[in-house]
Amino acid sequence: MARIVMKFGGTSVADLDRIRNVARFVRREVDDGHSVIVVVSAMSGQTNALVALAEEAGPAAAALDARYVEYDAIVSTGEQVTSGLLALVLQNLGYRARSWQGWQLPTETDQRHGRARILRIPEEPLGSAIDSGEIAIVAGFQGVSENSRITTLGRGGSDTTAVALAAAIHADRCDIYTDVDGVYTTDPRITKQARRIDRISYEEMLEMASVGAKVLQTRSVELAMAYNVRLRVLSSFDPPDAPGQGTIICDEEEIVEQQIVSAVTPALDEAKISLLAVRDEPGRAAKIFTLLADANINVDMIVQSPSRDPGAANISFTMTEADLDRAVELLTVQKEAIGYSTLQKDHNVAKISVIGVGMKSHAGVASTMFQILAERGINIQNISTSEIKISVLIDSEYTELAVRALHQAYGLDKANSAA
Amino acid sequence: MARIVMKFGGTSVADLDRIRNVARFVRREVDDGHSVIVVVSAMSGQTNALVALAEEAGPAAAALDARYVEYDAIVSTGEQVTSGLLALVLQNLGYRARSWQGWQLPTETDQRHGRARILRIPEEPLGSAIDSGEIAIVAGFQGVSENSRITTLGRGGSDTTAVALAAAIHADRCDIYTDVDGVYTTDPRITKQARRIDRISYEEMLEMASVGAKVLQTRSVELAMAYNVRLRVLSSFDPPDAPGQGTIICDEEEIVEQQIVSAVTPALDEAKISLLAVRDEPGRAAKIFTLLADANINVDMIVQSPSRDPGAANISFTMTEADLDRAVELLTVQKEAIGYSTLQKDHNVAKISVIGVGMKSHAGVASTMFQILAERGINIQNISTSEIKISVLIDSEYTELAVRALHQAYGLDKANSAA
Repeated sequence: MARIVMKFGGTSVADLDRIRNVARFVRREVDDGHSVIVVVSAMSGQTNALVALAEEAGPAAAALDARYVEYDAIVSTGEQVTSGLLALVLQNLGYRARSWQGWQLPTETDQRHGRARILRIPEEPLGSAIDSGEIAIVAGFQGVSENSRITTLGRGGSDTTAVALAAAIHADRCDIYTDVDGVYTTDPRITKQARRIDRISYEEMLEMASVGAKVLQTRSVELAMAYNVRLRVLSSFDPPDAPGQGTIICDEEEIVEQQIVSAVTPALDEAKISLLAVRDEPGRAAKIFTLLADANINVDMIVQSPSRDPGAANISFTMTEADLDRAVELLTVQKEAIGYSTLQKDHNVAKISVIGVGMKSHAGVASTMFQILAERGINIQNISTSEIKISVLIDSEYTELAVRALHQAYGLDKANSAA
Repeated sequence: MARIVMKFGGTSVADLDRIRNVARFVRREVDDGHSVIVVVSAMSGQTNALVALAEEAGPAAAALDARYVEYDAIVSTGEQVTSGLLALVLQNLGYRARSWQGWQLPTETDQRHGRARILRIPEEPLGSAIDSGEIAIVAGFQGVSENSRITTLGRGGSDTTAVALAAAIHADRCDIYTDVDGVYTTDPRITKQARRIDRISYEEMLEMASVGAKVLQTRSVELAMAYNVRLRVLSSFDPPDAPGQGTIICDEEEIVEQQIVSAVTPALDEAKISLLAVRDEPGRAAKIFTLLADANINVDMIVQSPSRDPGAANISFTMTEADLDRAVELLTVQKEAIGYSTLQKDHNVAKISVIGVGMKSHAGVASTMFQILAERGINIQNISTSEIKISVLIDSEYTELAVRALHQAYGLDKANSAA
């Protein structure tokens, strides 16, 4: 008898029919004799609707605004409803099932409302409950702070709940059911040559998540890696009695045939800001990036280049499009303090990343990338790299062209479709 | 500086505009220097929508069904959302405010999910919080059981939350804001002669609530009487800077000019079941009413009369219309065990009650009632009485006629409208 965590996202629980479908996946595992925890998201659209209501009631500004505490109380109701509904559906099928809210487990988090981090989930009482044959339906995305307020973990937080629970109860596996049947070598909407990956390493998945692949939340992959949780991504739209293989996310050593490059990941919701003629004095860059970090804006791909003005530099960097307006406003207000002449912003950029643990031992991955893009006349605006990833920023018009060319160049196209 | 509990029902918090309106009532009390607890219901329609969703997911049958536990987890989210929204609105106006869920106070209840009773609410931490100037927004209708599951108090439960809180923190008053500006001598939709009552005794209010006046939940009035909580009913549709007097519910002694009859209360959602030729053996009636009580169906106005069959009796009784179908089903299944020949059901009945503490010392109230109805040719089907109430069951077609005649006969018509 194994302990299994199953997580179902918003589209998998979009309405009662979809929730009944989830119950079919769950009962299969239970009927096989496993102890099962199910982590559920809010029904799709619910979280957005609740956030919109909260925003209209009281827009929050400052990072540690008391308003975020109330946002969490409001928004966490989405998962609460789904957890109760799935418990009811399973009860009606004759199974013992109960819902668990974040504060009931408890999922202890810090107090950073809206983006809290899980500190600890105790193994009990959950472990005993599921080993007694009761199915535990856990409301994902939410926790409780030291002073008993409801916290939420940020977008995609239910993945993190699932992995943290899997670690807490020493689960044999953690299956993330979503609306795609696994992790792909690239976005299948861009090229039909995209292939589902059978196995991918934690490190690669982490890079994919952090550059914008939506399939898993970054934090959940970090946790899985840290606690060696065996993760699997698979589709709740497959038949419940014959689900697909999905993609297993595991240790690099478990992957026999490691590709040099595993995936080409495009991110379209990028935006770029360039500050021209920033006075070239020590501390200027720190000022800029502290300002943005304090506002919880993550920046990436920072490039500093000489300005035409002597004693000044141009600094450009990227962030997600959602943060652009706030970043522009902050930087405009602080123009004098920072000391720059002009701010340019650009929505029409895309970040294309190639990712693979094989890069560690193989040279030439970067040069292939630059050559392929150059041959197609695609200008590289910014570059950032890690040990197993190279990202370039390009004009978003060239996204599909670049992705298809790189996907082929690194040998990721489907084997049987060369003709 | 007084401690004040203010409760706002579903229509008072129906949308964000109405919630902003509530904030205006709240800030007036706070600006006057009072310590304020606000109890909120779900936005109107929300509870029904959540119940419908839960019913569709897993209809619950037996009284102690595990499903009711999940109903409560689902349905309680309505109040949770409202509490967060009102806290946000008040924060945005510059006030310190926070939401409190049932499990955070905690509102300790028994485990009768869907109709739990409050066992205890501790004075702290709530008392200190409000005395520090923070406005407490409490999600009404909900509590938490000994084993940390969310419970709900049944329809209108937010009134009970408000009164229980008022008792717990020794509030100076408990103001129930609703969509009417007080308690009326009868339903103003039936006669324009209906008058708002300035003061009414707990006992009378209790009878009015229990015979179907919707303005306050019975349990909340019981609690107010037991803990001597000064209750007031007033309208959230009045201007926030000049609310009306409303109706004060208080001890009988505080009411100087006590009427003999204070109110004529019609209840239209009544239904009647008659069991014909029930074998007249000891225990038959007990069997019938135990069966219904176990299914949580409240019966009223029981009449037993001789049957044409020797050795048998006819038994008729009333219940709310909502319970009729379930009652019929239960009694039909148990027909053999109970031993009756025919079941008759009747939707077209109305219960008309006259209520007044003055009845204790004045004879003739009942005879006036029967005479007035007889004069208008209205047949009385069943009768039930208490020390301060007489209820009669009549054909629902005669409701308005009966109410208007009785309202006039007991001198309740407006003073200046005799002509």
